Amino acid sequence: MLSKRLIKYFKSLQLKKYRHQDRKFIVEGAKGVSEVLQSDYVIDYLLTTKVYAELLPTDQLSRVKEVIEVTENDLKTVGTFQTNSAALAIVSMKDDSHLGIPEDQLVLALDDVRDPGNLGTIIRIADWYGIETIICSLESADFYNPKVINASMGSFTRVKVYYRDLKEVLSSTKLPVYGALLSGENIYNSQLTNNGVLLMGNESQGISPELVPYISHSVHIPRRGAAESLNVAIATAVILDNFFR
Amino acid sequence: MLSKRLIKYFKSLQLKKYRHQDRKFIVEGAKGVSEVLQSDYVIDYLLTTKVYAELLPTDQLSRVKEVIEVTENDLKTVGTFQTNSAALAIVSMKDDSHLGIPEDQLVLALDDVRDPGNLGTIIRIADWYGIETIICSLESADFYNPKVINASMGSFTRVKVYYRDLKEVLSSTKLPVYGALLSGENIYNSQLTNNGVLLMGNESQGISPELVPYISHSVHIPRRGAAESLNVAIATAVILDNFFR
Repeated sequence: MLSKRLIKYFKSLQLKKYRHQDRKFIVEGAKGVSEVLQSDYVIDYLLTTKVYAELLPTDQLSRVKEVIEVTENDLKTVGTFQTNSAALAIVSMKDDSHLGIPEDQLVLALDDVRDPGNLGTIIRIADWYGIETIICSLESADFYNPKVINASMGSFTRVKVYYRDLKEVLSSTKLPVYGALLSGENIYNSQLTNNGVLLMGNESQGISPELVPYISHSVHIPRRGAAESLNVAIATAVILDNFFR
Repeated sequence: MLSKRLIKYFKSLQLKKYRHQDRKFIVEGAKGVSEVLQSDYVIDYLLTTKVYAELLPTDQLSRVKEVIEVTENDLKTVGTFQTNSAALAIVSMKDDSHLGIPEDQLVLALDDVRDPGNLGTIIRIADWYGIETIICSLESADFYNPKVINASMGSFTRVKVYYRDLKEVLSSTKLPVYGALLSGENIYNSQLTNNGVLLMGNESQGISPELVPYISHSVHIPRRGAAESLNVAIATAVILDNFFR
């Protein structure tokens, strides 16, 4: 049974301010909850319908601090989904104070990707291509926004996302920095290494002028037709595919 | 000045039933309106703010049947955008009764892509890669849905979209039929021609079993990481990039 006090507390986590104050966030729906239960995230509360609880392996349930049986209506009240017949978890954020850039991998850097759906989709793409680290500029969409978590389709559990001043990060790395620029080299003919930083820009402004000088290899996707541009998540996927094909 | 009768009529076009009854649809915002004004679509009404009207070339305005000066609030009332400080057009649908499959090009076939955002994004991707024809199954999202038009970022003016029984289409074509299947051949090693049909499946079900026998070349995008799948628009972009690189 959910108390009014807990409902109020859980709902407050839909807002960035309260999420970051308490360092907790919401994961909704069968896919996300199932992935977070199999991850190393600490799960403070699991709100679950009776039906969904019975489907869960005991070892996954046992690592939840508190399991509360709820109705589908409760899940709708607390979360952001139109319908949710499964579960909702309240999860502790991980420590992200130490940024480690692996030197033998490609990492993504996102310069003000503002749309939560785009960020979530990029996390899913990164996970598909085996990218473990994303560094977002400070103005990017919040990783813990329910729309980001949902769009990532569970991939948020496998990709580390940091928020940093990208100017500081890029100016201090010795790795190659690839950047998606309209003026860049045709990516089909580019020498692409399997390590370094791939910098992608904002939805409408692209990469900010102050970061362009740090790009050591600029690339672009050749266009055959007439569309003005590609969405940033689409461009990220196509570029990563060119790195790893 | 907008009459109540016209407001009611324009708003009714947000619904599929009324759009197809009258064969009219809505295009909103500066980007979409600017593209449709430069296309060969017949524009029945252009609702425009004073500021935006003054920016429009006379030859574009002159081909609109009726221009009505409105406020930003009117645009918000009639359309689906949260804010729109530019314009909104009421446009006549084109005749799509004759399906022509060009034999020297790649065409896309979409098997029940239900999400309007995905369909719009796929239209934009098709336009980027120079694909001129998309054939949707009868259960796919409606091309004229405002969310599709908006997500296409103007590309709806350059890509022809048909709705057909895909079983009939695929069973009668002699062109190669490529299909995205998890069991398909690694696309990096596949022989890809610049003509034929590329079949993409539904967001959660993939390609329906009854269409699989018509696939002459099944392909898949190799996964390096752990995400279960890629979004259908993302997969479409990556596959098209492999065709044309």
